[in-house]
Amino acid sequence: MQDIQQIIDTAHEMADAARQVILPLFRTRDIETENKRPADFDPVTQADRAAERVMREVLARRRPQDAILGEEFGESQGNSGLTWILDPIDGTRAFISGAPSWGVLIGLSDGNGIRYGLIDQPYIGERFEGGFGISRLRTRNQEHPLSVRTGHELSHATLMTTFPEIGTPDEAAAFQRVSRQVRLTRYGLDCYAYALLALGQIDLVIEAGLQSYDIAGPLAVVEAAGGIVTDWSGGPAAAGGQVIAAATLELHRAAMALLLNE
Amino acid sequence: MQDIQQIIDTAHEMADAARQVILPLFRTRDIETENKRPADFDPVTQADRAAERVMREVLARRRPQDAILGEEFGESQGNSGLTWILDPIDGTRAFISGAPSWGVLIGLSDGNGIRYGLIDQPYIGERFEGGFGISRLRTRNQEHPLSVRTGHELSHATLMTTFPEIGTPDEAAAFQRVSRQVRLTRYGLDCYAYALLALGQIDLVIEAGLQSYDIAGPLAVVEAAGGIVTDWSGGPAAAGGQVIAAATLELHRAAMALLLNE
Repeated sequence: MQDIQQIIDTAHEMADAARQVILPLFRTRDIETENKRPADFDPVTQADRAAERVMREVLARRRPQDAILGEEFGESQGNSGLTWILDPIDGTRAFISGAPSWGVLIGLSDGNGIRYGLIDQPYIGERFEGGFGISRLRTRNQEHPLSVRTGHELSHATLMTTFPEIGTPDEAAAFQRVSRQVRLTRYGLDCYAYALLALGQIDLVIEAGLQSYDIAGPLAVVEAAGGIVTDWSGGPAAAGGQVIAAATLELHRAAMALLLNE
Repeated sequence: MQDIQQIIDTAHEMADAARQVILPLFRTRDIETENKRPADFDPVTQADRAAERVMREVLARRRPQDAILGEEFGESQGNSGLTWILDPIDGTRAFISGAPSWGVLIGLSDGNGIRYGLIDQPYIGERFEGGFGISRLRTRNQEHPLSVRTGHELSHATLMTTFPEIGTPDEAAAFQRVSRQVRLTRYGLDCYAYALLALGQIDLVIEAGLQSYDIAGPLAVVEAAGGIVTDWSGGPAAAGGQVIAAATLELHRAAMALLLNE
């Protein structure tokens, strides 16, 4: 791998730049009801695009040789073997509701897998980071190591997902098989659920219908904290789709058995 | 009413005291898996009780003549005609999952209704306050006025509730009649949903099975911001049970019609 410190610095500079353009657009008032702005003003789309644009500018300046896959502006070629995977605002529905569970997601792939990533929540001021031997949460004034917790029984586990409907009816039924066995199921937190898993606060995140840019950053953060992230069949999760993230191998195995069995 | 500034100062002192005792217990690790603490250590129960205790100490010192109704330690008599209604941690399931959507709730009743209240989120550092002509959000370094937004069509509205199951099957069916008509339904935010309503970020909160101490603080915050809070029949909401909070009269009327009609 190339200059790791420069890669990490670049990621932080990207996340800092995204914060600057997104925060002024968070919790702006709905124009349909306020009528003070042009009718086509859509703060989340504007924030999404502006954030990806400034992140790409950082990469163009600091690492022009890397490829980019971004939610808003698609693929850009590179020749370094590294690809940055960017979701400028994961959780747009949380964003338009004023709920600070959305995040800026950055992942770095070397072609064999995701090697590094971060989840940034600009409003709360939290940055969860994992990879290259790093596993940490930085808040406005502190830094904490991240590590998953060590429970192995579903009956004691806390499970999170974003939407109660999960995905298709079959996917919802599979999710419910797991949900019925755990102590607590919570909804609605988007990428922040993966951050709580890496923090050792919950045990499982199960979702469906993800895009690769939804999972690259969270995957790196959870794996660096000691967790397991795969698709529902135990294969690589980096392409998105059906994803399960677990604090321990035991929980991963037990939840996956329920997901797969009718 | 008595010395209003002294009442407001007392409420803030209570919320400050609650923050101090709760925050060190937030995001502590699960003892079942960590085994570093006695097996009966329950951080949320300990935080709940410690917070109500320090809030009661503030009242005993500053306003011994007021009555108290608290989630943890029940009723204390007074002779001023005023009752403080305290929920030291609303959203205990969010708390034990590490999600910062729980809050410290304080409400003040004069026997005819809730006159003042606040929702405090110590981890994010936000305090939403309403009553006595006040309607504001204080963050760590800023203060914003609170006001609901002015939309009046369900088809454009954002609806929040905490649990997808709502309450009884009939209550869930009633909720779904509203949910099917709105643009967006989001789950999982506990008292923070009322704060987002007062902030003008969402339009409706509909819940069931609430206790009086779950709704007193939020009710004051939402009403002071211009919203409407009633039970599902349009009567007073202060006793808890089935609660609907709406940004506008039009949305309140439209949602209530759906809640009541089979």
